[in-house]
Order: sequence, then structure tokens, then C-alpha cells
Amino acid sequence: MDRLDRIILAHGGGGVLMRDLIRDVIAAPLANDALAQLGDSAILPVAQPNSAGRPATGEGARATGRIAFTTDTYVVQPVFFRGGDIGRLAVAGTVNDLAVVGAAPLALSLGFILEEGLPIADLRRIVASIRDTADEAGVRVVTGDTKVVGAGAADGIFINTSGIGVVPDGIDLGPSRITPGDAVLVNGGIAQHGVAILSEREGLAFETPVASDAAPLNGLIAACLAAGEVHFMRDATRGGLAAVLNEMAQDGGLTVEIDERAVPVDPAVAGACDLLGLDPFTVANEGKVVVVCAASDADSVLAAMRAHEQGRAAAVIGRVTEGHRLQTTGGTPTERTAGGTPESGRVVLRTVFGGARTLEMPYGEDLPRIC
Amino acid sequence: MDRLDRIILAHGGGGVLMRDLIRDVIAAPLANDALAQLGDSAILPVAQPNSAGRPATGEGARATGRIAFTTDTYVVQPVFFRGGDIGRLAVAGTVNDLAVVGAAPLALSLGFILEEGLPIADLRRIVASIRDTADEAGVRVVTGDTKVVGAGAADGIFINTSGIGVVPDGIDLGPSRITPGDAVLVNGGIAQHGVAILSEREGLAFETPVASDAAPLNGLIAACLAAGEVHFMRDATRGGLAAVLNEMAQDGGLTVEIDERAVPVDPAVAGACDLLGLDPFTVANEGKVVVVCAASDADSVLAAMRAHEQGRAAAVIGRVTEGHRLQTTGGTPTERTAGGTPESGRVVLRTVFGGARTLEMPYGEDLPRIC
Repeated sequence: MDRLDRIILAHGGGGVLMRDLIRDVIAAPLANDALAQLGDSAILPVAQPNSAGRPATGEGARATGRIAFTTDTYVVQPVFFRGGDIGRLAVAGTVNDLAVVGAAPLALSLGFILEEGLPIADLRRIVASIRDTADEAGVRVVTGDTKVVGAGAADGIFINTSGIGVVPDGIDLGPSRITPGDAVLVNGGIAQHGVAILSEREGLAFETPVASDAAPLNGLIAACLAAGEVHFMRDATRGGLAAVLNEMAQDGGLTVEIDERAVPVDPAVAGACDLLGLDPFTVANEGKVVVVCAASDADSVLAAMRAHEQGRAAAVIGRVTEGHRLQTTGGTPTERTAGGTPESGRVVLRTVFGGARTLEMPYGEDLPRIC
Repeated sequence: MDRLDRIILAHGGGGVLMRDLIRDVIAAPLANDALAQLGDSAILPVAQPNSAGRPATGEGARATGRIAFTTDTYVVQPVFFRGGDIGRLAVAGTVNDLAVVGAAPLALSLGFILEEGLPIADLRRIVASIRDTADEAGVRVVTGDTKVVGAGAADGIFINTSGIGVVPDGIDLGPSRITPGDAVLVNGGIAQHGVAILSEREGLAFETPVASDAAPLNGLIAACLAAGEVHFMRDATRGGLAAVLNEMAQDGGLTVEIDERAVPVDPAVAGACDLLGLDPFTVANEGKVVVVCAASDADSVLAAMRAHEQGRAAAVIGRVTEGHRLQTTGGTPTERTAGGTPESGRVVLRTVFGGARTLEMPYGEDLPRIC
């Protein structure tokens, strides 16, 4: 990355290049424990301010609750597409980032960058979609900001939505909770959003049109949490399922084994991917969550997903394998640490042909402005 | 506004046109009580979620604290300027939006839109400035997002910062708290930021160069709150002092009288405004706050400001006049309602020549991308 001295499109692709940029150029200088986690949302203990008017945080705080806080900017092109629009994405994506850390979404902010010349009718349509999606998720937009830039200085409309949520007592999710033997589930067919956007952009017409899966998943996720012992969740957006599984394996220092045949891919999506030369594992989703839970609860969590509108095609797609947790340098090996192996922190795909290959972290996705 | 069917630059200027766009096109469809206030930050009661996992909010909530939540997007051009850069603005502006509602800033989010081709050295410099300004304000960046768009689809770098803060018990600020007789203060010379940006943009060199006033004001504001009975605060950004005073007068339904001679304007800024044909009252600031407090506490609040780095040139600039609160339609007039007068909700400027004129709300500022 040091050889690159300018931003390139692949820096935004959700892969290795983006992760390195964020770690080295952005997170390192700002270093603090909350940011270093690079999670979907930061989780902050919040206490009433002390007499000096400064809120106490951290271990010494008289915690009165945990607040989840997240941000996402949406630059999707085109802004209207089959199955959604930039407004629906902006609400669903941020709600999902809150939900996957176990938070009940409380409120959203809305920051617009509008390009001179944007039809106000488009803005109205997008705001209506924001309202409808917020209603669907049961969350409110409580604050906002609007900036206008000259023609040519932006591209129609960009939207930032940040969100806050409340993490109930007792919720404890994270890559460190992932345990060998855990089951890995996904709530339905992958790659729909990326294929829908690309079809729209390229003017492709498939026999069975593919619609984006953009949807708020907080209802489905709450049902999963109630149904069993969930250890980790992450929504699969840029970089697709491959990026989430690799992040999970690397952050947890474990191996994740995925059964390719078990991964739901709608036939129309599979056909479109074949035609377009795309790997469904690296194509973006906007309504898919990977859930890791105790193996003994896999059936009940799966049933909870399938009972939900956004989880009809849910499936158990793999498991976390034992004994491959990376040895922490300098630390005392825990019971779960069986020493590093060449497979630690990797995703192994058991293919339809009975073989096995590594499912790589994407480098820099080929599809800019997918979300 | 109905005659305009496309976004124009003036929609972003902080004046009447922007206010109408936000009210009619954005806030109305999303209608809820928190958003309707159009305050600098939304203030939300936060309680632990009930057993269904949904946080209780509103009057029925078992409130465990009040969280302030705000968002701001920064599109300033050029990104580096005398006295600051887009990173300093992005931290200071959002910290100030939290501070003026009485919140102690707790955490910021950081959303980047990067244009393909942006030098990574520029990004590093901006991130360093974000870190330094966050340290100055005593706040942490805890979560972020990075998007990349193709060359020509943005303009270098846009930054959204959202922020959350904790509102201490007992704090109650707002336009409805403004009382006839209250004193109006500002913490120093106005119009510096706008003049600094315009000088940079136009390549103007003044004898005494003007630097932006961009600065986090949470320290100064906490000192004001401790020094006296503060009723209302707002930072004067786009639309300048004129916009804040008019918003305040309109939202409070009162008349605000300003003594033109008392308003601090640095001589270099006044000279530049003369030369450029700008009215300092409508030029943007990024480190100025208007504070309305009980008349009896004006001296102590002024002293608290002047004791602070960002308040050396603070001044009492006017007062709220009695008896001009607008009559609420259909409501029962309160004690403070003396019936509408032609001056209700207006800002009256007592000029240097001893006359009086209305200080109008700016329509749509002439300086796009000032912040």
C-alpha cells in the first residue's frame, strides 16, 4: 500500500486494500480502544456527568447503560434501483450496523450532500423512502444536516446516516466470543444487492429480474438473540459474504469451514453472476446477516430466522473448527489455544465437488459505489 | 420555493431558502417531535430496553440519562486554509453543536467520501488535524466509514462527523427559555471564517491576513453554564450572526435588539468585508457562539468567556426586549404573551448612527462550500 500515493477506487471496495487504508491512515493516528475494534458500531458505556460536567466513561464509570454508535455514508449509483433506493439503503444499512452488535436502534441522523441541479422531486421521493424504511425498522430520524455543492462537485445525492442504539444488559457479542464448534448461519440468498445494482447500471434485463435485498434486519436479529446463544453477528455488505467470513476468522483467530452447497444463492442471481463473471461470495448484500451461535442452538436460531420475512431462505452454512485459534504472542495459551496452524484465521470452502479451497478476503471489489 | 424544481447553490446557504427546503421537503415527511425542533442536536431520553429488547423513550421512559445526538457534513473548499482545515472544522463544528445544547461531548463518528485521485498525504494531514482537534476538545472518534467515488463524482474529500454527548441533569436550554430582558452575548469577533475561506479561494492577500476562527468551544461553553443562568445558546455558522439571531427571535417569538457598535469585528475582517462587499453579520463563523442569559448574570458570563482562550474579545451585544412575544394561534396567551406586534420574532439593529433597522434573515448565502 505504501507504493500507492493516491486514493484509487479499490480503496472503497470492502477488501484488503480498504482495510489497510482504514487501519494505517485513519484508525492508527486516532488510536483509541473503541475505534481499534473496527466493529460495526462502537459500544460506549454512558454515565451521568460528574460535577465538572464531563461524562465519566470507561471502567471507572458509574454505567447507566451502553450506547451503540455507528455511521455509514451512501454513494450508490444509480440512486433508484429495483428493490430500493439510496434512502432505503441509508436507513437499513445503519440500522443493521446497530442491530448486529445487539443494540435496539433508537435514533438516526441524516446528512445530505446535494448536487446543484438535483431534481427536488427526487429528493422528495428519497425522503419518503427514508420515512417508510424508518417506520419499518421502528426507528426515528431525529437530527439532520444539508449541504449543497456546485454542479460537478458531487453526483446527485450522497447520504450519511449515523445511528445510536441501546445495548440491553447481558448482551455480549464479538469475535472473541466465537467458539470452536459454533454454527454459522446466513438469513437468505446472497449477492442480490450487487447484482441488482449492476443490472440497473448496465441496463441488463434478465428473464427473472433480480431485486436488491436492502432491508432493516433488526426484527430478525432480535428474534435470533431471543432464540439461542448467539456469539457474533455481522451484516455482509461491501466485499460480500467472503469479506465478513474472513474478518470473522481473522478477528477470532479461528478457522471457518463453509459448505458451498449450503450457501443460499437464488437461481436468477447465480445465473446473472455466471453471465457477469462475478463470484457471488464477493458481491455486496444489503439485507444479509451472518450469525454465529452455539452449535446446540443452531436449529432454534435457524427456525427463528425462517419464521421472519427476511429469513425465509435462511440456512446453516458452516461451522467454526476446533483447535485453530491463533496463539497470542507473549500471552498464556488458553484452553482454546491449540497453537497456530496454517489454517488459523482462514475460511475454508468445502466445494460442491467435494474438495476444499481457501475463500480469500477480496482485495478491492470491482464494483464501485455499490452502496 | 414551489417554483424551484431543482436544487440550487443557495439552498445550502444557511438562510431562508435552506430553512424552507429542510422544513418542507425533509423534516415534514419525517415528522416527529425530536426532528421538528430543528435544533443543533436532538436530545433523547435513554432508558434500558424493556424485556422485548426495545428501548423505552418519551415520557413513559424510565430515563437513565439524556443523550444529545447531532450530525454535520463538511464540504469546505479549499480543504486547507489559514487557521484550519476540513478536519479541524469537522471536529469543532460537531463538538459545538453538542455543546450548545448543554451536552458534554462523548464521542464522534467519522464518515469520509474520498474522490479517486486524492493524495493520501492530504488524507493523512486531515486525519492528524482531526486527532489534534479531538484532543483539544477532549472527545474521541469511536467509529467510522469510508467510501470512494470516481474522479469527478466528488471534490477531493467530504467529511461527515456525527456526535453524541451526555446532557447533565438540570440543564434546560432552548428558545422557549428566552425571557424578555435577557442579555445577548457573543464570544468574539465575527465573520473570520468566511473571510479566511474567501481570501484563500480568491488568492487575496490582505495586509493583516485573516485566519479562520474554527475551534471547539465546549470548554468555553461549560464555563458559561457554570457562571450564570444561561437560557439559550447557538453557534453562528452558515448564515452568520444574522441567521442565528433571527432563528432565535423567530423560535422564541421575541424581539432581539442588537447594538451594532457592541458587536466585535476585527479591523482586518471589517476591512476585508468592505473590500469584498460582504456584510459581516451574514458571513460564516466556526468558533463563535451566541449566548442568551439572565440580565443579572451577564457580567459573570461575560467574565467567564473572557477568561477563556476563545473568548478574549467577548461582548454583550444586545438584549431581548419585553412584550413582543408572538401570540400563539389558538392557544391561551401566557403571562409572557403580550400579543403580537410588528416587531415580534424580529432582530432590530441599533446602528452606529443611532438609527434602527431590521437585521434580516439571509435568503441564500453567496458563499457556497464555506464549511
